Amino acid sequence: MNIFFNKPTIMGPEVKYIYNAVEKAKISGNGEYTKICQKYIQERYRVKKCLLTTSCTDALEMAALLCNIQSGDEVIMPSFTFVSSANAFVLRGAKIVFCDSRSDHPGMDEDLIEDLINSKTKVIVPVHYAGVACDMDKIMNLAERYNLLVVEDAAQAIDSFYKGADGIKKALGSIGHFGCFSFHETKNVQCGEGGMLCINDESFFNRSEIIWEKGTNRTAFWRGDVDKYGWLDIGSSFLPSEITAAFLWAQLEAIDDIQRKRRAIWENYYEGLQSLRDKITLPKLPDYAENNGHLFYLICENKEQRKELIKYLKCQEISTVFHYQSLHSSSYYKGKHDGRSLPNSELYSGCLLRLPFYYDLSVEDQLRVMTEIKEFLNN
Amino acid sequence: MNIFFNKPTIMGPEVKYIYNAVEKAKISGNGEYTKICQKYIQERYRVKKCLLTTSCTDALEMAALLCNIQSGDEVIMPSFTFVSSANAFVLRGAKIVFCDSRSDHPGMDEDLIEDLINSKTKVIVPVHYAGVACDMDKIMNLAERYNLLVVEDAAQAIDSFYKGADGIKKALGSIGHFGCFSFHETKNVQCGEGGMLCINDESFFNRSEIIWEKGTNRTAFWRGDVDKYGWLDIGSSFLPSEITAAFLWAQLEAIDDIQRKRRAIWENYYEGLQSLRDKITLPKLPDYAENNGHLFYLICENKEQRKELIKYLKCQEISTVFHYQSLHSSSYYKGKHDGRSLPNSELYSGCLLRLPFYYDLSVEDQLRVMTEIKEFLNN
Repeated sequence: MNIFFNKPTIMGPEVKYIYNAVEKAKISGNGEYTKICQKYIQERYRVKKCLLTTSCTDALEMAALLCNIQSGDEVIMPSFTFVSSANAFVLRGAKIVFCDSRSDHPGMDEDLIEDLINSKTKVIVPVHYAGVACDMDKIMNLAERYNLLVVEDAAQAIDSFYKGADGIKKALGSIGHFGCFSFHETKNVQCGEGGMLCINDESFFNRSEIIWEKGTNRTAFWRGDVDKYGWLDIGSSFLPSEITAAFLWAQLEAIDDIQRKRRAIWENYYEGLQSLRDKITLPKLPDYAENNGHLFYLICENKEQRKELIKYLKCQEISTVFHYQSLHSSSYYKGKHDGRSLPNSELYSGCLLRLPFYYDLSVEDQLRVMTEIKEFLNN
Repeated sequence: MNIFFNKPTIMGPEVKYIYNAVEKAKISGNGEYTKICQKYIQERYRVKKCLLTTSCTDALEMAALLCNIQSGDEVIMPSFTFVSSANAFVLRGAKIVFCDSRSDHPGMDEDLIEDLINSKTKVIVPVHYAGVACDMDKIMNLAERYNLLVVEDAAQAIDSFYKGADGIKKALGSIGHFGCFSFHETKNVQCGEGGMLCINDESFFNRSEIIWEKGTNRTAFWRGDVDKYGWLDIGSSFLPSEITAAFLWAQLEAIDDIQRKRRAIWENYYEGLQSLRDKITLPKLPDYAENNGHLFYLICENKEQRKELIKYLKCQEISTVFHYQSLHSSSYYKGKHDGRSLPNSELYSGCLLRLPFYYDLSVEDQLRVMTEIKEFLNN
């Protein structure tokens, strides 16, 4: 492919930092680079506590463990999301109650949530699709009224914000009880495979460290709080290596540069494709949300149009991809779903198309992508 | 510390390979380095299928998922092992039935297993402590008679072998239904944090790929076997990044060099400490096992002696460490354990001491370790 859909970039000192980690004779988890990354995120985004993980999937699994999900508990989330949003809770025995997407955005329709709440409901999982905030005031309000926990799936939402009724800009992932981030290679800041759990409610701090370290109090031991460590709880090995954390630190240091570049790419697409508004739908940003330049999508008129557009662009050596298959109609869950139709979710599954988007995408290449899309749609 | 307990080593091309992975615009999981590592292990150790994971904990969790553990199923394993051997199954609802260690070795006493089997027993987890084989003929025999699955916890057992009654040398991890390896920085071959699942029974091949890829058939999709992928099953993100796999490949390429060096270190300790046989116990290797030079331990006469020896060596700037706290008497499990006393397990928890052991340990430093141990024990 001449123009990739995604291309991970080395920002500069990644490899130097990996060397440093090896020199310090410490490349297993929870070393200096892990701590630097965590501290940086905590301070930059006013997150009370965060822990790096090997993936966003693992961050979601940590959140499910901390929510103490029991067999039969219900968890509300959009159907238009990655399987891990659901699997993390299914692994703990939860029943997933899928909510439809908004008509103007792939995010979950906040106004449909309340009708899905019953006495078994334990958690709401808003997914900030494309890094665009869900209406967190509405969701946190429901959570408070019904005594639910909120796990923000902020996989795509690094450096993105929400401004609610109080007028205060809050980082996504810092608002619910937990926030889960991805540093997968397709993300703005990345380390190949990686993730992070933000813990915004202090009552979960202690247990989060234990679950992170295989159910032991090893973190407290390293800090010198206890003189030996042992098995206290369930847990897993959620820690990434220092190789991974060192790589990630080089990316985090460059986050302002990355974000400037990515927001510009997004704006270019948005401005450059305005003339096609009668043929395709462009993304829409609610007033309360900010754009973190994570991905740019357009919504085709129908599945057939999308298929033909992908095919045409492929012939021009431009790679574009669709996104999630709706989970409520997946092989695994369709028999377990309650039968409600989720038309907006199906619409995005069938018609949404993502355009090439990465730090090194040149203005010329981006122009070529847009020219070819226009060529196809205008003929 | 002048002499570390462990020190990870860069074998040479680790960083070059990481660059290569980035150049290929693919550093998320299941890329070329992952495939090279898997193929190499499969061929070198005659393993039917193996999948890299982010840790041995994760490999054990994959095995527990593949064993289809249900609430109340029983799993037999030694108490003298790492928490993850147990946690992986506890997360799926299993009850752990702990078996005592052998009197001559920290491994599980194979002759005690049969009495622990009942109608709820589903899995036996032999842990090849220090890379030394359990008597796999006995264990596989029991598994066949009682229709049980065997998950080898081969965390420490890379490049180690077992020779049973048929006289054929088999790699540890290739004998049970599943074998789980660790590439944690303390291991012979390492990438900071990492692991691998070997699947030795073909009936699990298909599901293992699905569980590895978040419960989807994405692996089959990349191979071109299906034209789109979806949610089929439970699963998690068990794939390490290509950064991790690239690092690991550089280590695997050097495995013969690493193993020569480590076996020599082990032999040096073993020969050099013979004169202390009346004061401490040296490791013993059963006839059917080989030594992979993973770790060298000695067993002190009692807890007090071990404590004093650690303290003395620390004053000489030599770092030595004990190993597992017996899991049956941990805070988390003591109330769930059936009350049997496991004296050998407690003995190793209380008296076993591990000596400095890593690729770069110089002959001089090793000599100093031994001289100081003799100094302490002879006075």
